[in-house]
Amino acid sequence: MNSKLKVIKVGGKLIENEDRFSAFLKDFSKLEGNKILVHGGGNLATEIATKLGYETKIIDGRRITDKDSMQVITMVYGGLISKKIVAKLYSLGLNAVGLCGADGGSVISKKRPIKDLDYGFVGDIESVNVNFVDSLLKKDIIPVFSAISCSTNGELYNTNADSIASAIAVNMSAKYETELYYCFEKKGVLANPENEDSIVRTLDFETYEYLVQDKVITDGMLPKLHNCFEALQNGVSSIHLGDFTLLEPGSTHTKII
Amino acid sequence: MNSKLKVIKVGGKLIENEDRFSAFLKDFSKLEGNKILVHGGGNLATEIATKLGYETKIIDGRRITDKDSMQVITMVYGGLISKKIVAKLYSLGLNAVGLCGADGGSVISKKRPIKDLDYGFVGDIESVNVNFVDSLLKKDIIPVFSAISCSTNGELYNTNADSIASAIAVNMSAKYETELYYCFEKKGVLANPENEDSIVRTLDFETYEYLVQDKVITDGMLPKLHNCFEALQNGVSSIHLGDFTLLEPGSTHTKII
Repeated sequence: MNSKLKVIKVGGKLIENEDRFSAFLKDFSKLEGNKILVHGGGNLATEIATKLGYETKIIDGRRITDKDSMQVITMVYGGLISKKIVAKLYSLGLNAVGLCGADGGSVISKKRPIKDLDYGFVGDIESVNVNFVDSLLKKDIIPVFSAISCSTNGELYNTNADSIASAIAVNMSAKYETELYYCFEKKGVLANPENEDSIVRTLDFETYEYLVQDKVITDGMLPKLHNCFEALQNGVSSIHLGDFTLLEPGSTHTKII
Repeated sequence: MNSKLKVIKVGGKLIENEDRFSAFLKDFSKLEGNKILVHGGGNLATEIATKLGYETKIIDGRRITDKDSMQVITMVYGGLISKKIVAKLYSLGLNAVGLCGADGGSVISKKRPIKDLDYGFVGDIESVNVNFVDSLLKKDIIPVFSAISCSTNGELYNTNADSIASAIAVNMSAKYETELYYCFEKKGVLANPENEDSIVRTLDFETYEYLVQDKVITDGMLPKLHNCFEALQNGVSSIHLGDFTLLEPGSTHTKII
């Protein structure tokens, strides 16, 4: 049997709440076995871009990553947030390494093709360097990924952190029994969107389809869950969705199977 | 006999010149064998700090690294410059990883003691994690270090890039026959400060003392060369000082022995 691996994605809103994030990293540090952290960036990049006088470019309601934005993302995600997480984990007794997709050629992407819209410096993932990531895990070093990928010609691209977490989990499942954890604002998938406590504890594909038909699952949750079931089909053994307490033993959350 | 290792420190002024730096990284990529890159940050951090409205704090002519400055340094050195170098090296066919001292606990420091002056977030190096750095080299991954160290309690500190390069070279010399390269603005140590071409090709300690006595070597070069001879005493096999052409085969520069 393969050894186990947990890939944990933490959203920007949790990172922004210093006390909660600190508690979360403590929970993370207590997890047994192989683990990988993937982090978003939240509003800090936008805040710093605004301070630098860069305008956020939005076309048809979609955010465009121009050269200035990509510079800020590289600074904030790849530098500030990444290195602070690694330093905090070090103080908790863990050896970690803050990575973007260029490091060790770990997450290679291609510029998103221009159809109706040029998204700018946005990359769609093409490959994950499983051997490199595995060599870190084998040395008890925790890979900490920011939401940045890299093209083969050395261009850094903005890439959704959920997609990076999912791609890493799918690719690593060739070597490990891999579980994927998404920490976001909600406690899980809600059976009744009006009631924050109506958490669906276990979600299989049949129930998912039923909840979609019933319009219980809508909007932002649709692509997230679609990606989850795709990851399950591609080798990930289970997926967990929950809030900042997700890594606490016995936490109430949604397990997708 | 131990295998060989080259530790190469590149200064901020070279990094700022995009064409020259690009050519330099090409030379770097062609170097055979084990290699480590250490980079300064140049004026980019100051530029971005100014844009963000942070004032540079100088007391008694000495720069103080306050919380805001440290944040900018983490963004610019640890994120922007580091990841761009790694991405460029990837496009040249090399696997590299951009590190600060927190990554893998690679460069651990202690806050500089407050005597006459509190330098703020400035750390003096205490240890280098030789095993971690060695494990990367063994996997053909090039460590790229920014001028940031980390304390045991997870505080990131500003640390002179020359000192980081020297500490890494000295510590790695336990496992490798280590050469240290400093790329800066000059072609080497000058026998006549008025003549940029009067490069001392080989400098031993006797000649150094003679040139100091003769006031040929003064100011900024004094601590730099003092550190060089200290590194030689502590295990580094040779040190090379030169400009952006330093890594070109047959370059004219100063070799310190």
